[in-house]
Amino acid sequence: MDIPVIRDVLEETNARAAENRELFDKHGVFVVNIMSSPGSGKTTLLSKTIPLLQKRGLKCAVIEGDITSTLDSERLRPLGIPVVQANTEPFGGDCHVGSHLVQAALKHFDLAAIDVLFIENIGNLVCPAEFYLGEDRKAVVLSITEGEDKPLKYPLMFRECKACVLSKMDLAPHLDVNIESFKENIRKTNGNMDIFPVSSKTGEGIEKWVEWLLKKG
Amino acid sequence: MDIPVIRDVLEETNARAAENRELFDKHGVFVVNIMSSPGSGKTTLLSKTIPLLQKRGLKCAVIEGDITSTLDSERLRPLGIPVVQANTEPFGGDCHVGSHLVQAALKHFDLAAIDVLFIENIGNLVCPAEFYLGEDRKAVVLSITEGEDKPLKYPLMFRECKACVLSKMDLAPHLDVNIESFKENIRKTNGNMDIFPVSSKTGEGIEKWVEWLLKKG
Repeated sequence: MDIPVIRDVLEETNARAAENRELFDKHGVFVVNIMSSPGSGKTTLLSKTIPLLQKRGLKCAVIEGDITSTLDSERLRPLGIPVVQANTEPFGGDCHVGSHLVQAALKHFDLAAIDVLFIENIGNLVCPAEFYLGEDRKAVVLSITEGEDKPLKYPLMFRECKACVLSKMDLAPHLDVNIESFKENIRKTNGNMDIFPVSSKTGEGIEKWVEWLLKKG
Repeated sequence: MDIPVIRDVLEETNARAAENRELFDKHGVFVVNIMSSPGSGKTTLLSKTIPLLQKRGLKCAVIEGDITSTLDSERLRPLGIPVVQANTEPFGGDCHVGSHLVQAALKHFDLAAIDVLFIENIGNLVCPAEFYLGEDRKAVVLSITEGEDKPLKYPLMFRECKACVLSKMDLAPHLDVNIESFKENIRKTNGNMDIFPVSSKTGEGIEKWVEWLLKKG
């Protein structure tokens, strides 16, 4: 008697991710998976980033990953772009956005009318780093309020991402932090990381981050 | 042919937690499981809390949960108390402190010489809320830099905890946040939550939080 064994939990999730990737390729959608701790400013960053992409004629859309609530989707409503709230609660309150959840969300978009799709992951600096969703790039937002040691304590996230947005730079004068130490610890973990100090409040650094998004390859 | 089925993944973890609890009871150790997002100030809070407990003649100890690194344990070194760094990396880089990890850490303590044991969980507002470690109480630290919506977006954590420390209160003048909204959203999620606005920098609120720790039952 053969007992079927799921060899690799990741096999199933990677199969869904590959299907997502196929759809993105078919429709020429560039996909960025944005991850971070809770409250680092992912949604605010998107609300400042997307208008600059729109100015350049790019059509944007967002999958808002959360365990529950539609709070973040509502915050993006003024942008007038397609937004799908993808809650993990019906899937068991998962701690990360899974490729099956992205697949379910994609059914609600007209992909042919989208150039750039952001997946705003669940606020969690650990688990989301483990899962490929079919995206082109992963980026991590690290609020400078969280402290310089985070890249050393949560290395997988910083190894998996190609860019790190250092957010809430406007608070630097009020914090006992050293921006150079953030950069050093990020580079110790991932020597190839592109780092963007940004303040969504003052607009500092947003243009450079947008340039990175536009840079192909 | 009988195929053994693990009915409940939690069965195993709860069995270890019960063993931990038995040890705590045997030695009269009061145990607090401290959870939060990365960088909310758990370690700094402990470094301010423990001296006030020591002043009252209480012997403290800490289990420092992290995925990797001994950075937080080193920060507690000046307190001169027993600290065990419990890294999940050898256990697969788990996103939470498990009861088996606490059990392994307990072997390094002289429990008869400890009154209060803090378990500083991994920085993660999602997964640690799901696991009982044998502790007396769970508390969540929420930095006001993270925004007022967090209790609504991460409800399990706020439902599981008995107290919420609102940390980094000294930053309030520099943030667009409303402290009353934090309290409202916490109470919407858990009507019985004790809330402590605290600044580890200025010392604001630490005494009240310590009183709560001392309050039995």
